[in-house]
Amino acid sequence: MLQSKLFTKTQKEMPRGEKSINAVLLQRAGFIYKEMSGVYTFLPLGFLVLRKIEDIIREEMERISGQEVFMSVLQPKELWQKTDRWSKGVGKEIMYKCKVGDKEIGLGPTHEEMLTDIIKNYVKSYEDLPLAVFQIQTKFRKEPRAKSGLLRGREFGMKDLYSFHATEQDFKDYYQKVKKAYFRIFERCGLKAIFTEASGAGFTREYTHEFQVISEGGEDIIVYCPRHHFAQNKEITKFKVGDRCPVCQGVLKENKSIEVANIFPLGDKYSKAMGAFFQDKDGKKKPIIMGCYGIGTSRLMGAISEVLHDEKGIIWPSQVAPFLVHLILLPVKKIVPLRKTAEKIYLGLQKSGIDILYDDREDKSAGEKFAEADLIGIPWRIVVSERTLEKDSVEVKKRDRKKVELIKINHLSQFLKSK
Amino acid sequence: MLQSKLFTKTQKEMPRGEKSINAVLLQRAGFIYKEMSGVYTFLPLGFLVLRKIEDIIREEMERISGQEVFMSVLQPKELWQKTDRWSKGVGKEIMYKCKVGDKEIGLGPTHEEMLTDIIKNYVKSYEDLPLAVFQIQTKFRKEPRAKSGLLRGREFGMKDLYSFHATEQDFKDYYQKVKKAYFRIFERCGLKAIFTEASGAGFTREYTHEFQVISEGGEDIIVYCPRHHFAQNKEITKFKVGDRCPVCQGVLKENKSIEVANIFPLGDKYSKAMGAFFQDKDGKKKPIIMGCYGIGTSRLMGAISEVLHDEKGIIWPSQVAPFLVHLILLPVKKIVPLRKTAEKIYLGLQKSGIDILYDDREDKSAGEKFAEADLIGIPWRIVVSERTLEKDSVEVKKRDRKKVELIKINHLSQFLKSK
Repeated sequence: MLQSKLFTKTQKEMPRGEKSINAVLLQRAGFIYKEMSGVYTFLPLGFLVLRKIEDIIREEMERISGQEVFMSVLQPKELWQKTDRWSKGVGKEIMYKCKVGDKEIGLGPTHEEMLTDIIKNYVKSYEDLPLAVFQIQTKFRKEPRAKSGLLRGREFGMKDLYSFHATEQDFKDYYQKVKKAYFRIFERCGLKAIFTEASGAGFTREYTHEFQVISEGGEDIIVYCPRHHFAQNKEITKFKVGDRCPVCQGVLKENKSIEVANIFPLGDKYSKAMGAFFQDKDGKKKPIIMGCYGIGTSRLMGAISEVLHDEKGIIWPSQVAPFLVHLILLPVKKIVPLRKTAEKIYLGLQKSGIDILYDDREDKSAGEKFAEADLIGIPWRIVVSERTLEKDSVEVKKRDRKKVELIKINHLSQFLKSK
Repeated sequence: MLQSKLFTKTQKEMPRGEKSINAVLLQRAGFIYKEMSGVYTFLPLGFLVLRKIEDIIREEMERISGQEVFMSVLQPKELWQKTDRWSKGVGKEIMYKCKVGDKEIGLGPTHEEMLTDIIKNYVKSYEDLPLAVFQIQTKFRKEPRAKSGLLRGREFGMKDLYSFHATEQDFKDYYQKVKKAYFRIFERCGLKAIFTEASGAGFTREYTHEFQVISEGGEDIIVYCPRHHFAQNKEITKFKVGDRCPVCQGVLKENKSIEVANIFPLGDKYSKAMGAFFQDKDGKKKPIIMGCYGIGTSRLMGAISEVLHDEKGIIWPSQVAPFLVHLILLPVKKIVPLRKTAEKIYLGLQKSGIDILYDDREDKSAGEKFAEADLIGIPWRIVVSERTLEKDSVEVKKRDRKKVELIKINHLSQFLKSK
């Protein structure tokens, strides 16, 4: 894309009323626009990142046989009354509600009720199980405190996966598969997630699990083994800093962290309440065993920028960066030959399938261009200048390194693809 | 995908309370699930169609320089008060509203206010214009009558594009570009759209334009030239059936039709109200000239099934079909060699990039399988049977034709790609 055509611009000033790093960086760099507390619009650069995150998650969900659906936001009151969550708990505390005539409807903060109600129409026998269904969709929650940018939204993107099983053991096996898929997702997003025990949310005697990423911007606190053998959310743990890891005897640490995902057993709570039963091999009618698994997609974008940045701006990992390459044309008097070369590089790399933002603007100084590029945080910066053009080369620099390499123009595509 | 794993099943019974063809067919075939009047969930097959429609639209929007964003659903009251649409018009009549504490917020039925408010932060000079911004997102409207399935939703998918210009002429040129892009979109979706003049929506003296598709299931009526030289919505026209086309003198017809899109000039209504001005070449401050262009994505899915079906089920056009090929294994006693061949075909076609649904179920009769395949409506049906296997061939049939062709198995991929 041509940067001269991109309608957003970066801003030097700090956005008013924002304290969290992710909100400040993402707004200054033009990824998001704040509509109100906890509600953001995704601008072109931000939308590209969000789509890449979604595509990674979609791929990994399909690898574990997830079938994608797209459920409605508007939810009938009757569904929530079946699980007694309309006037209590989630429905009372965080659900937005609208009136249509004299009928009340809710905006989905989560979809256990709705999906279980759908599934029961199709699952009759143990032969219809197991199955896993997911969606990537906008959720709504009345958050009392929405001060952490994309980390806690009133309107936010979420991938929610639900699994349905005939037996507890089958559920447990699938739970392990999801755990592995989640680690792959966070790795591809450039994050080190720590598998953390958390509280049981009232309907399971066992722990649930969170994926936590160490960050001073996080709203959680975890006590964890530095070698990742053990971690518990501070809310439930009896361990403290300096205690020994129950697995490896290493010394436990404590840190603020961002919960980027959670996975938990639902047992038969929803299937019993919604009437989702199946006939087992032995002919008996049994409630379906369920699990649910969430990842906040917009929160993940917030977490990446919260964790991966320096004093100059964001440092996007390649797989979720809005573009892989930021090509920069330096403004000089005799710009025609430079521009020709830059355009050739731009079209050539695009043709070889590389996402590229081309800063073709002539009214910005080199200093301004570099500062903007660092703020936006695209992984590879390529500079076309008079000096290197004599050698048929360009300067290539990785966002998180100081070293500048001189690369021959006709080796560029190969160089970038080998990285 | 293996059909044995697909969690939805087709149903023979008519869904209760549905009269429109699209709602009946899409529910019976397992594409959508009705949550409440005008609110549907997209099941795996429906989600695939929706994504293909979205991808076609996205591609055509990018071809006309559209920059994609994703705006929030929750909209502050203050934005709508600036255009006086909170307590009147759209805001009064069709906007869902929620309370958060004592603050009122709306669920976006459209995004002129929000986008103009964003744009004004980035557009300062005529050099920042023109620009075009679009999103594909869920919209919410309190429709009093929501009886036409996906054709009129309370919650529905929409692509909305907004364009911003320094001059009226520039706007008019872009309007023509969008018109062409829209015709390409409908052609790729298998629909013949008629460009129709409609009423000016109060803020323009000129007509706006709708893209109408002839269908008995439509809620509009148009008077049109059969050679598509002229068409007007019955709401505004002075012409009647039998009158002469003002362009070609052909005899005008009248028919019910589905409005699949609309495009209209906004002039400076929103830019003036929201304070979106720019400095022109002559140094003068001027309001930005705007246009807006909508396509209902879920409505388009409804329109396709409403128009393209027969008594047996839906007939999806290739580019929006959930799968290109429906491979059917016929149940026989000695099924092992048949299954082996079918699996080979399944994996082979998948490898060559063809979307394929493989009906691998053994507990369904040939008759049941064919009836289900016709209801679901995938373009190409391939049947693996004992009879043709002797000739290393399979039976291939197009959904909308009677002719069955015998194709050698190792020519299949080539055959399908040549179509």
